[in-house]
Amino acid sequence: MVVTIGFGKLGNIGSAPLLEFLLDERAERKDIEVRVVSSGAKMGVEHAAHVAQRLSEFEPDLAVVTSPNASLPGPTRLREALSSKVPTIVVSDSPAKKAVQDIEKAGAGYLIVEADAMIGARREFLDPAEMALFNADLLKVLTVTGVFNVLWQEIDKVVQFIQQGQAPILPRIVINKEKAIEASGLSNPYAKTKAMAAHEIARRVADLTVEGCFVVKEWERYTQLVAAAHEMMREAARLADEAREIDKAADMILRTPHHDDGAVLQKRKLLEKPRKQD
Amino acid sequence: MVVTIGFGKLGNIGSAPLLEFLLDERAERKDIEVRVVSSGAKMGVEHAAHVAQRLSEFEPDLAVVTSPNASLPGPTRLREALSSKVPTIVVSDSPAKKAVQDIEKAGAGYLIVEADAMIGARREFLDPAEMALFNADLLKVLTVTGVFNVLWQEIDKVVQFIQQGQAPILPRIVINKEKAIEASGLSNPYAKTKAMAAHEIARRVADLTVEGCFVVKEWERYTQLVAAAHEMMREAARLADEAREIDKAADMILRTPHHDDGAVLQKRKLLEKPRKQD
Amino acid sequence: MVVTIGFGKLGNIGSAPLLEFLLDERAERKDIEVRVVSSGAKMGVEHAAHVAQRLSEFEPDLAVVTSPNASLPGPTRLREALSSKVPTIVVSDSPAKKAVQDIEKAGAGYLIVEADAMIGARREFLDPAEMALFNADLLKVLTVTGVFNVLWQEIDKVVQFIQQGQAPILPRIVINKEKAIEASGLSNPYAKTKAMAAHEIARRVADLTVEGCFVVKEWERYTQLVAAAHEMMREAARLADEAREIDKAADMILRTPHHDDGAVLQKRKLLEKPRKQD
Amino acid sequence: MVVTIGFGKLGNIGSAPLLEFLLDERAERKDIEVRVVSSGAKMGVEHAAHVAQRLSEFEPDLAVVTSPNASLPGPTRLREALSSKVPTIVVSDSPAKKAVQDIEKAGAGYLIVEADAMIGARREFLDPAEMALFNADLLKVLTVTGVFNVLWQEIDKVVQFIQQGQAPILPRIVINKEKAIEASGLSNPYAKTKAMAAHEIARRVADLTVEGCFVVKEWERYTQLVAAAHEMMREAARLADEAREIDKAADMILRTPHHDDGAVLQKRKLLEKPRKQD
Amino acid sequence: MVVTIGFGKLGNIGSAPLLEFLLDERAERKDIEVRVVSSGAKMGVEHAAHVAQRLSEFEPDLAVVTSPNASLPGPTRLREALSSKVPTIVVSDSPAKKAVQDIEKAGAGYLIVEADAMIGARREFLDPAEMALFNADLLKVLTVTGVFNVLWQEIDKVVQFIQQGQAPILPRIVINKEKAIEASGLSNPYAKTKAMAAHEIARRVADLTVEGCFVVKEWERYTQLVAAAHEMMREAARLADEAREIDKAADMILRTPHHDDGAVLQKRKLLEKPRKQD
Amino acid sequence: MVVTIGFGKLGNIGSAPLLEFLLDERAERKDIEVRVVSSGAKMGVEHAAHVAQRLSEFEPDLAVVTSPNASLPGPTRLREALSSKVPTIVVSDSPAKKAVQDIEKAGAGYLIVEADAMIGARREFLDPAEMALFNADLLKVLTVTGVFNVLWQEIDKVVQFIQQGQAPILPRIVINKEKAIEASGLSNPYAKTKAMAAHEIARRVADLTVEGCFVVKEWERYTQLVAAAHEMMREAARLADEAREIDKAADMILRTPHHDDGAVLQKRKLLEKPRKQD
Repeated sequence: MVVTIGFGKLGNIGSAPLLEFLLDERAERKDIEVRVVSSGAKMGVEHAAHVAQRLSEFEPDLAVVTSPNASLPGPTRLREALSSKVPTIVVSDSPAKKAVQDIEKAGAGYLIVEADAMIGARREFLDPAEMALFNADLLKVLTVTGVFNVLWQEIDKVVQFIQQGQAPILPRIVINKEKAIEASGLSNPYAKTKAMAAHEIARRVADLTVEGCFVVKEWERYTQLVAAAHEMMREAARLADEAREIDKAADMILRTPHHDDGAVLQKRKLLEKPRKQD
Repeated sequence: MVVTIGFGKLGNIGSAPLLEFLLDERAERKDIEVRVVSSGAKMGVEHAAHVAQRLSEFEPDLAVVTSPNASLPGPTRLREALSSKVPTIVVSDSPAKKAVQDIEKAGAGYLIVEADAMIGARREFLDPAEMALFNADLLKVLTVTGVFNVLWQEIDKVVQFIQQGQAPILPRIVINKEKAIEASGLSNPYAKTKAMAAHEIARRVADLTVEGCFVVKEWERYTQLVAAAHEMMREAARLADEAREIDKAADMILRTPHHDDGAVLQKRKLLEKPRKQD
Repeated sequence: MVVTIGFGKLGNIGSAPLLEFLLDERAERKDIEVRVVSSGAKMGVEHAAHVAQRLSEFEPDLAVVTSPNASLPGPTRLREALSSKVPTIVVSDSPAKKAVQDIEKAGAGYLIVEADAMIGARREFLDPAEMALFNADLLKVLTVTGVFNVLWQEIDKVVQFIQQGQAPILPRIVINKEKAIEASGLSNPYAKTKAMAAHEIARRVADLTVEGCFVVKEWERYTQLVAAAHEMMREAARLADEAREIDKAADMILRTPHHDDGAVLQKRKLLEKPRKQD
Repeated sequence: MVVTIGFGKLGNIGSAPLLEFLLDERAERKDIEVRVVSSGAKMGVEHAAHVAQRLSEFEPDLAVVTSPNASLPGPTRLREALSSKVPTIVVSDSPAKKAVQDIEKAGAGYLIVEADAMIGARREFLDPAEMALFNADLLKVLTVTGVFNVLWQEIDKVVQFIQQGQAPILPRIVINKEKAIEASGLSNPYAKTKAMAAHEIARRVADLTVEGCFVVKEWERYTQLVAAAHEMMREAARLADEAREIDKAADMILRTPHHDDGAVLQKRKLLEKPRKQD
Repeated sequence: MVVTIGFGKLGNIGSAPLLEFLLDERAERKDIEVRVVSSGAKMGVEHAAHVAQRLSEFEPDLAVVTSPNASLPGPTRLREALSSKVPTIVVSDSPAKKAVQDIEKAGAGYLIVEADAMIGARREFLDPAEMALFNADLLKVLTVTGVFNVLWQEIDKVVQFIQQGQAPILPRIVINKEKAIEASGLSNPYAKTKAMAAHEIARRVADLTVEGCFVVKEWERYTQLVAAAHEMMREAARLADEAREIDKAADMILRTPHHDDGAVLQKRKLLEKPRKQD
Repeated sequence: MVVTIGFGKLGNIGSAPLLEFLLDERAERKDIEVRVVSSGAKMGVEHAAHVAQRLSEFEPDLAVVTSPNASLPGPTRLREALSSKVPTIVVSDSPAKKAVQDIEKAGAGYLIVEADAMIGARREFLDPAEMALFNADLLKVLTVTGVFNVLWQEIDKVVQFIQQGQAPILPRIVINKEKAIEASGLSNPYAKTKAMAAHEIARRVADLTVEGCFVVKEWERYTQLVAAAHEMMREAARLADEAREIDKAADMILRTPHHDDGAVLQKRKLLEKPRKQD
């Protein structure tokens, strides 16, 4: 059976832009089909309605909804529209913790990414380039520290339930520093502690962006705050990169490519063949 | 008038995942609406058909189609389905040059990104993490070297035509090293030459990934080739970052945020207000 | 008049080991005498008593008391013993905020250093070398981000009051990210935002060391937590260094050497003479 | 028996500010008590007298005297005042070699630290920030290259003699590059050679600071000389850091925490328990 | 028998300046004598004649001719003058591929170094310093990526033929990325892929220098192109350095010193004796 | 008049391999001809004789003799053979200071390069790759710190004398840290101090290589010493590179290309035309 996964995306978080590709990184999987519908940067209730409608027309077997702050009206609307029909997983950032009870009541799952910090969305600072660079740095952090591994592995588990005709058990996980590092596959213990440090720095970026976007009103002050936040993310990315380089130097990078049939293969040495996990 | 832009995405290239956000980086624009439909990593003809259908239901005023190698059947199908109804811009990578005549005949525009090199898509190498890291590095290169500026500025121009009720002149540009750097807004001449070097290194990544994915058959050899290609991209990102840091050190980072009304503001000093361009 | 400053030190914080040298960095000041008494790493009540007694014998005109968490019994005893006789300034870290009311009641001043994060004091991790390296990194952060400037400038102000025969107004300041950066003298705005980022990373080190030292009981987990905390501090130091290098590249390093008479001179260009501030 | 160690500090050298904490890095040792008395930056004969008097009142079992150039009158006075009563160890820098015979005649021991180079004490250059940064860099060098290990291990040996009621044999060691590296505990041979290189660069800093402070009279020239010297120290710190990172990458960092009873434990892997040395 | 090797050098390529020292790096070999004659930067036919004449007077047993583009008249003249009398090996860069048939017809051998990219020889850019820095970077690339190993090993083989009185089989090799890396002796697979990336970046430098020197006529444009090319080479050197550092961190640097008798010894660990290869 | 410069090279020093190219970096000068004769790594008296003979046959107007330690018999023989016939300049390293009186008596000039430190010529360490890397690092130091500028400018001056038919005044200069930096053309004062630091580190490399090659007999010890020395040189190169990057960031790199007629042009901004100096 081929499982169709429908991704409904409202607004942007670091976990969203590559999420569907994490499931099928070489476009070879025969066991899943992917459909994505998004309204871009905007995440109003009406956007949610449009996205929900088109995505439903694709008749997905599983819905994954991504947005900042899943407790807002738009994301709530999208989640509710989908979860009433189909198993639904919410992927969102720390403010989504407020919606956890609602999500559980609706029978949906959630993957809340603590390190997926809010961007410094002030007009004096954030332009297209700064937005893209922040996402590039954040991608590096989310990848190396293990966050992305949790995301795709949990979605893969649900896909497997559905393929086997079982009622899926949906994930309900807040991905914090220890959960992430455990999933990172990093081998050297200092690589792990550097990755954990990177994770924490990234998570704390949100303290400054929230202060800069919602608390401080003087433009010179908030511009500095959000700029400092982006410097923190750049640094977190640099540290994450350093962590991965340590594992390269020991030829111990964990690689977990997907097989055509959706199985996850595994290898450590660069020059060895990946094998199915036991 | 609010212009609705429909993004149809088949497969992945580095220019695609953040493209719609480049147009509205703080989700504040009132002059555009964005809709995205994608089939994820896969880009067959049937995927193209599905994407085209749902995207058309959104009734966009402008279509932007992203895919690797726009000369393949899937991207061609998607482009043709859309361009017959609505002004359409193709965003693709170097192999798309083969489709240029076709695209022009169909009355569509194109933005071909030379630095948007193919990923090292070999199962012995590419897993979800390696895929995400390659994209993170590539994002950094495409941003700093000016490629993204060309993309969103050209799409913005077409939006403006439509808003003004004019028949849009669609862009037909191969974004090479000189076009990119010119658009980069970098100020220091060594920042520019470093960015140009980063651009060229990124572009040449494709030589190794193509050789590794399509020419060499022995797995030990192709694994090394695609791994070397990703090291090149990591280096290109590092060099791009270095270029931007030079402009930071002179407080000369060009920032071009979008205003609510879609106008592009501009500033150089971190602590100054952005202003409308003349 | 020569003012004698007595430093009573209990335990260690990053702000303490060089504090007296910040006031007289070339040993040329004729207007102050310095005496330091310390009980080393320990900070019990009896240690406080010993330190207070000997320090009092030096008959200081001003007392500066340094310790971690000034609300603990030892630091409280030392502070009370001194502040009853002589103007006293408490220099301590974030947990000292709990003692602020007590300090004020006792008529003492305080300089609370938010970035002066607790060390990862677990036997599985912290040895003499790791302790020294943490302090080296922390010194770099406290210096570049402006924290040290606040410390010596505030003490200098009190010295001046005493020299002029006035009742000193004692400082009551929590040195946070904005206060620090303002005092840093950094010139380039990105240097400032990098310094602010370094400050915040350093401050957040304490979250992990507190969790690792007081909350988590499993030794494998707490060892990783405190190790990650030290990696954060190393990164903060690296970022602080980067900030200062930016000002070097513009020949804009602020230098504020003390004159023999205690006045603060000032200069920016490396090859110019320092002059008295207006 | 609890051994009381009295530290008398005149002026500053890199080995001094953390010296007492190297003996009891987590404030857990029950077998020693520490008392420190210092006159800050100044090191005149009268300062020595004051420090000696107060320190003697603490009735130490062992005295450790730190100062630049132990052959100067102040340090000599302090050393003589203490060594006539109590076993005394002099910790000083290279110029102290001139005092070696005197120290030996007085029955005292010495630990002369060749890498503990003089600071660039020129008013046009050295302000509080530059002083603190030099010390931060120097701390890194002294730690990683093994110098600090020699210091605390030698003092620990003397403590042990006293605890066992034996007449202590006092150390008489010039800590040069080979002695330091041997004590560094570094594992990888290139980490060792990098550390040795860092040690030599640090040692040679003194050539330039001595030339800049005592030989050259034109202020533009000596400002450049002492500034170059501090750049050398920054570089030495960077190289020392690089050496330690190599051992992290092999999970081979030697950790030698003190036990409560003063014994030195030992471990290499981050995630193992420290054990008593054989 | 002592073999005399005559090096005739016309113009400069990166492989030339240290070539003779690669054969006898510590000046200890008793089995060879070296003579070098060069006309410096110029490579006209008359220069070739002068060089050939003097070099012939040294009566070499083997000639090695180095120059850019061996198909030019000068290098051709030198090669022909020598190869008619003595076994001759041409060492040159990529454009020399055009001369391969000629070289073979003349009975000479060749070692064509693809990574030995042309310098950015424009007066607006290239001065003595820029020339030297480009060569320094290129040397690093050619060394670490294995190119130099191929060069000296192939010349050594011919020397051995001659010493044994055999008719030498001359090398005919285009040193590309895979040949180079194979000879590099690098141990860690990521070190190899980084070295391969460095090799490719260096090779592609020539694309920009050729465009900048021979195609583009506007001085602002070509200045930027050749400057970007040199930034690429700097980056390639940095990446090569990074590759070697990885092998240092594993204590796996291959060292192949020449013995006095010309034999090649071998070792990996820094602290072991080199031994003759089997 | 075209001046023929004959370079006689015995053995290798860092100043030698590119020396003739420093005079004519783009092979465009019409006012000089260059001839080089060398005996490679060896520098015996008989080698000197051979080199002298062939070089004399080229009938140079000016001779430049390069070798390590110009006071050794081989270099002395070469110098004497040439200086009796033609104006001769000796380029050598620090040990050549012993030959200064001899050189002056012979009427020759000298350029003694203090930073041109001896290589770590021990068989357990130095192989072709290590030799080449040391030279690459040294080249970077000699270029950026201004040493090479002194070399070619002084030779250019003598060429000019000869062209004007005057008896040349030969240079007699020991190039130390201050002479070098003055000639470096570096603009930013911190770039200068970093370059001076790099120069001093490079100069001090010789302390360790001399100790490792001539003093210490135990192979494990001398291997570490010479390896540490090469790490120092690598670090010096890194610091030199950092210095130059600072001037790039200010667009203030001094470029001094040679004109066809031998005149030295000058420029600072990357995008400006070089002009003749006043």
